[in-house]
Amino acid sequence: MDESYIHPTALVETKQIGKGTRIWAFSHVMDGVAIGTNCNIGDHCFIESGVRIGDDVTIKNGNQIWDGIRLMDGVFVGPHVTFTNDLYPRSPRLVEASARYADRKWLVPTTVNRGASLGAGAVMLAGVNVGEFSTVGAGSIVTKDVAPHSLVIGNPARPRGWVCRCGQRLIFQDDRARCNKCTRRFARQDGMLNIVDAIAG
Amino acid sequence: MDESYIHPTALVETKQIGKGTRIWAFSHVMDGVAIGTNCNIGDHCFIESGVRIGDDVTIKNGNQIWDGIRLMDGVFVGPHVTFTNDLYPRSPRLVEASARYADRKWLVPTTVNRGASLGAGAVMLAGVNVGEFSTVGAGSIVTKDVAPHSLVIGNPARPRGWVCRCGQRLIFQDDRARCNKCTRRFARQDGMLNIVDAIAG
Amino acid sequence: MDESYIHPTALVETKQIGKGTRIWAFSHVMDGVAIGTNCNIGDHCFIESGVRIGDDVTIKNGNQIWDGIRLMDGVFVGPHVTFTNDLYPRSPRLVEASARYADRKWLVPTTVNRGASLGAGAVMLAGVNVGEFSTVGAGSIVTKDVAPHSLVIGNPARPRGWVCRCGQRLIFQDDRARCNKCTRRFARQDGMLNIVDAIAG
Repeated sequence: MDESYIHPTALVETKQIGKGTRIWAFSHVMDGVAIGTNCNIGDHCFIESGVRIGDDVTIKNGNQIWDGIRLMDGVFVGPHVTFTNDLYPRSPRLVEASARYADRKWLVPTTVNRGASLGAGAVMLAGVNVGEFSTVGAGSIVTKDVAPHSLVIGNPARPRGWVCRCGQRLIFQDDRARCNKCTRRFARQDGMLNIVDAIAG
Repeated sequence: MDESYIHPTALVETKQIGKGTRIWAFSHVMDGVAIGTNCNIGDHCFIESGVRIGDDVTIKNGNQIWDGIRLMDGVFVGPHVTFTNDLYPRSPRLVEASARYADRKWLVPTTVNRGASLGAGAVMLAGVNVGEFSTVGAGSIVTKDVAPHSLVIGNPARPRGWVCRCGQRLIFQDDRARCNKCTRRFARQDGMLNIVDAIAG
Repeated sequence: MDESYIHPTALVETKQIGKGTRIWAFSHVMDGVAIGTNCNIGDHCFIESGVRIGDDVTIKNGNQIWDGIRLMDGVFVGPHVTFTNDLYPRSPRLVEASARYADRKWLVPTTVNRGASLGAGAVMLAGVNVGEFSTVGAGSIVTKDVAPHSLVIGNPARPRGWVCRCGQRLIFQDDRARCNKCTRRFARQDGMLNIVDAIAG
């Protein structure tokens, strides 16, 4: 697909939509957003001014991507994921809190790195860094950084295992694992996972 | 009501909408969906091609019903319930994961049986079977099958009691209960609940 | 701003919208709703007949405010908060449950008091009272009343500390605290927090 596609009911105010990217029904993308190529953004989404989204990103329905959220290439955002960008939220219209909202210093950025997946209904606290090719389990509340290739689950989300680039869970013998789906090989060392070879026999 | 009702702002692409069914504002029902009679589907919902929904189903606002989800007669889906149909999600556009999305083998179906209720904000992992007349508590994360008439709560959701067909909690004496609302009688045996009589005096 | 603003794609059926209030894209406000002055209601929201909302309230995107929910002045409702108004939900169309829905006695009201904040993705069980200037942490499941100025977190939400009117966490010496942001002073007594002076030197 060469062109981007915008559903007739969607409201897209930016011009920075990459080739092959599709934006579906009742979604709203504000001016000042930049979205890469070959993305898919489901129905009822909202993307706020200032957001940068890479290539090959999938955003399922009902997501809101606030200013300060950065989604790198190949990220998956499940349905109803909730992002935040403020650690001490109050109504900016409340007289007791309005001084804090006079500038943008309250805004705490979040990055979701290449190939990571955020499971359905996850809640992301402002300021976390989600490592490459990690997976956040459905319904988890993410309050801390997520290591690359790790699987985190729960409230608060805690490490429970490791996942392959393709998304499958890895099973270890000693500190070595080979994905039983795509055959990629990994080595675990000092609490981190390293890929041994991209496509192994 | 003889006819179905579709709100002027809703987008309904299927013809298979039963009599008396109403679909509200900003909702999107795709082609290839079949919905029974006398259902009510709130605002901002999305129903994907392939979904089958029974009669007398209530779907509150902001729900997404994916391909592979089956809602039987009389089911209640509270607001913001999150369904899933993939246990190892990745962006299908991510080169490391795209092979898995070449066919539909990744899709794991979920069934919600007759008269069950899914509480507001619940998250349903792909593959669970929700028993007849059970209730999932608000905000619960459902990772396992739910027994008929059981009440499950928490993250992960665990059995906490039993509910009547009418939705009320049941209080037991030995292994017998009589609903204090609708007077139906139940007997508990081997970890399952059986109805003794439908309308008892 | 003197006038209210209604986005062209929003559907607003009430006339009771206060001055300076803005309602954004794809939101639906029913007839019989009353909203005060200077509020901000994000995209993809739904506000049901019967709801009363105070002044200076911020409702982020994707929220549904049901009949029975009362939001007082200066409340913040984060993205994807889930409210409820029924403790034993069933599909009202289900023959076994329909008798209960013949009148409105099933409806259990919820109040969020002045200046309180409901964090993103929180789930509010019907019937709770959320105290003035309290904060509900993101992703929390609120099953009990929330004390004024308290911070509650978790599933179920439990008290974890205290917050200032401006939203900052308070750090105590003995039973006294002074906000390190806005300098307001507080005294803790018998499990409650009292403000000592509004703007202290």
